[in-house]
Amino acid sequence: MISSFEGPTRRDVLRAIGMMAGTAVLYQAMEVLGHAKETQFAGPPNLQGARPGTRVVVLGAGLAGMLAAYELAKAGYEVQILEYNNRPGGRNWSLYGGDTYTELGGATQKVGFAPGNYLNPGPWRIPYHHRALLHYCKAFGVALEPFIQMDQQALVHSSKAFGGKPMRYRELHADWDGNVAELLSKAIDNRALDSVMTKEDADRLRLALREWGALDQNFKYTKNYRSSRRRGFDRPQGGGVLGEPIPSEPHAFKDILDSGIWRVVSQHMSIDHQHAMFQPVGGMGMIGRGFAKQVEGKIKYNQKVTAISQQGGKVTVTHTDTGSGVTGTTEADYCVCTIPLSVLSQIDVDCNPALDAAIKAVPYSNSVKVGLEFKRRFWEEEEAIYGGISFTDREISMISYPSGKLHSDGPAVILGAYTFGPASYKFAGMTPEERIQRALEQGSVFHPGRYKEEFIGGATVAWSRSPFTLGCCAMWNEETRKEHYQTLCAVDNRLVLAGEHASYVGCWMEGAILSSLDAITRLHKRALEA
Amino acid sequence: MISSFEGPTRRDVLRAIGMMAGTAVLYQAMEVLGHAKETQFAGPPNLQGARPGTRVVVLGAGLAGMLAAYELAKAGYEVQILEYNNRPGGRNWSLYGGDTYTELGGATQKVGFAPGNYLNPGPWRIPYHHRALLHYCKAFGVALEPFIQMDQQALVHSSKAFGGKPMRYRELHADWDGNVAELLSKAIDNRALDSVMTKEDADRLRLALREWGALDQNFKYTKNYRSSRRRGFDRPQGGGVLGEPIPSEPHAFKDILDSGIWRVVSQHMSIDHQHAMFQPVGGMGMIGRGFAKQVEGKIKYNQKVTAISQQGGKVTVTHTDTGSGVTGTTEADYCVCTIPLSVLSQIDVDCNPALDAAIKAVPYSNSVKVGLEFKRRFWEEEEAIYGGISFTDREISMISYPSGKLHSDGPAVILGAYTFGPASYKFAGMTPEERIQRALEQGSVFHPGRYKEEFIGGATVAWSRSPFTLGCCAMWNEETRKEHYQTLCAVDNRLVLAGEHASYVGCWMEGAILSSLDAITRLHKRALEA
Repeated sequence: MISSFEGPTRRDVLRAIGMMAGTAVLYQAMEVLGHAKETQFAGPPNLQGARPGTRVVVLGAGLAGMLAAYELAKAGYEVQILEYNNRPGGRNWSLYGGDTYTELGGATQKVGFAPGNYLNPGPWRIPYHHRALLHYCKAFGVALEPFIQMDQQALVHSSKAFGGKPMRYRELHADWDGNVAELLSKAIDNRALDSVMTKEDADRLRLALREWGALDQNFKYTKNYRSSRRRGFDRPQGGGVLGEPIPSEPHAFKDILDSGIWRVVSQHMSIDHQHAMFQPVGGMGMIGRGFAKQVEGKIKYNQKVTAISQQGGKVTVTHTDTGSGVTGTTEADYCVCTIPLSVLSQIDVDCNPALDAAIKAVPYSNSVKVGLEFKRRFWEEEEAIYGGISFTDREISMISYPSGKLHSDGPAVILGAYTFGPASYKFAGMTPEERIQRALEQGSVFHPGRYKEEFIGGATVAWSRSPFTLGCCAMWNEETRKEHYQTLCAVDNRLVLAGEHASYVGCWMEGAILSSLDAITRLHKRALEA
Repeated sequence: MISSFEGPTRRDVLRAIGMMAGTAVLYQAMEVLGHAKETQFAGPPNLQGARPGTRVVVLGAGLAGMLAAYELAKAGYEVQILEYNNRPGGRNWSLYGGDTYTELGGATQKVGFAPGNYLNPGPWRIPYHHRALLHYCKAFGVALEPFIQMDQQALVHSSKAFGGKPMRYRELHADWDGNVAELLSKAIDNRALDSVMTKEDADRLRLALREWGALDQNFKYTKNYRSSRRRGFDRPQGGGVLGEPIPSEPHAFKDILDSGIWRVVSQHMSIDHQHAMFQPVGGMGMIGRGFAKQVEGKIKYNQKVTAISQQGGKVTVTHTDTGSGVTGTTEADYCVCTIPLSVLSQIDVDCNPALDAAIKAVPYSNSVKVGLEFKRRFWEEEEAIYGGISFTDREISMISYPSGKLHSDGPAVILGAYTFGPASYKFAGMTPEERIQRALEQGSVFHPGRYKEEFIGGATVAWSRSPFTLGCCAMWNEETRKEHYQTLCAVDNRLVLAGEHASYVGCWMEGAILSSLDAITRLHKRALEA
């Protein structure tokens, strides 16, 4: 493994350490080698030497479950996955034209999108620092393309600002920075920071603020070329006789305050939403499909788990075939359970009371997404919006333009609503058709002329009505973390839990994957020691 | 043209106006219709009704020249393009493996890049608001993909900060915002802004600053989850037993000031560098090739223009074949000249003295680019940098990672230097091999371990040594604009100039295109009136 010719690479060293020890040692090694900040992932776990004939049953064919099965099979275990749905991927999922989805309550949607168009009901973007997920996408041949998170040409709408008229992100962003720079510069002039800063540093800061905020020579943010080169011109720079641009007037700072623009800017400053981001070509569900190819033949679909027993030196899982209604059992030496806690807490699990308490301690969030298909990309053709998000303070919270197939003709799907908090439960209480109508109505604030006239049809998923998760993802807080997290992650006799709920990267695919790698590394160690 | 069934669309109206009038009317119409801010482009000009047999000679097969030829030919003119190079595109150009380039001074490079790899010596990115260029890319079948301009994981190096150690953009960016927010919040506490702001607005601003700057409950920017969720954790959020993240310590604000980070952030706030941006799949030169297909058979290559005469009711262009050395003339009724002013000022042009003065009034900037090919994408594999730019205060000014073929294996080309100002002339004074070595040496500050050991080879273009432009692009200032710009753009008898130099979008392809559209629209009008 370690090349004798050129000396070991950093990766070789990490792999060698990984072969002998678990994640903790690996992580310490990474810190020493100086690249710890972006990820806890140091390459695949390289489990080896399972005792022949040792069986593992994996519950759930989401990313955590399929990855566990893949790595454990590679290590020599006999692996069987039981999955509730009739497809792999779990929350990693795209709805395409022709797909059918029935939610709790019985409403069934037949999706009518054009070929190639989709809604990602769950995850929809991958941050650059989600190294484990990116590693497996590459290893499993899942093609990725850039996801455009921030688009300064997109719109920001607040019912409290500009009489409810949406404004360009770039105008509000530029005006925010410009005003903040001017105000802080003025404060320096007024000697308000003398107690915290030397005169020399204050002078340097003033000059820096002028450049950063596009202030004029008098440290004012005003209508001129400098500010317009950020917020846009009234008449843009052009060619020939009429080429000279006409600067635009910045908004009043009071209006900028009303707009809440700093919330949008803050979102894009989060490490989870910084550029670069990615999405799979053809829909997020391509990841689930890519993982499924690696565990082909190992997944038994349409299996509803009703009990997990650890009696008699083995694990026995009771499950019912949702098609035939027949109940049976699967036996194994060990079990990796990736069933969401929202569902698992309703299943008879034979485990330590502390783990049982942990399973029942964590509530699940809700979210509703609506996909809206339009006849053409009017947002690209008419408004130069390519991917990115327009934000609003209405219930839909945002609309997001597709990052794939940019500049193409034909129908395309906008994420027309991504609700949080109370709005989610309100939307979940509606029929799918009502949700789609509400999303159309609220989103038309951004594109009033086009939104309704170009609309073809929609699809929607309310996660609280999802039969396989009963919610969106685990909502930990400081107290539940303290009391239950380590218990939830610990191997319990022959059982270990995995999934985004057993991670600090909650609601992200990366959490599911890192949790899975940690769980199986420790389960493997336990199995070798047994 | 106007659909009678559904009523005219905005585009139909604009097209109808465009058919009857020139750009000025079109632009006024756009303003009334309310979409003027992003572009002066309102669709192709739709010139029609040229007098049969009218000939136009176009000088230069760059984007301005080829577009002029394309649109004039569509309008019915007989068009001939004379081009100095043996290829179309002009400054729109990519150097691929196998290409040969000889600069002024005689140095010849044979490019050794792997198949598919390239250096874009000139333009390399397309802003979302360059609508005319985007329109023609689509119309001419030039496939585009996202260009990743800002990558928060990329590095920022200042010889004056952190002992010369590069830092992550995201750390410096987060710390800048955090400190600015804390300082302004403190100034509000100190009543330094009482004279410019109501108490109510000041209170709202303080709360906004807390959110925008990731301040804690005491309005301080400190080591905690909030700030680390922007600048990154010391131990990132993970899965399983060791999942809990460990926050990172913000840098001292003095160091942030030393870093000059606001300059980098400012660049990305410019409307020319805001997301979304694009590049052609396979290199910028694909645009030139795409345009050339539209004027197939109309370009005569290797023609060095030496004189332009307007005597005898026609235009006569004298040109020498650079292969055979044979000099000849081409006659036409009109001439569209896109030769850069740096070259045109050395040619005998028969025109109004005012135009002659304008041609000689505008100096050209210089810039040097260096492409460095490496064995693999170590910046992606080891550092999670995907596209984007690492900035430095050294002469190379930046290195830019490829936005194409992300996540792929095999060799890839980094833009290893993009020099401006004095550094450009210093680099231009070196041999190509010296430039490549200097770029390697200076750029290794970002990736010291990998930069030299993974290096394969390089290519470089110094624009001041470019035989076909003698520089980079036109450097207007306020005075030359006032005195010469309108003269430069006006039709002079049978001659009109076009190119980025005849625009306010200088140095950008969009400027060349908008200038070309304006020039031919007015030339067509003149020809119809003649």
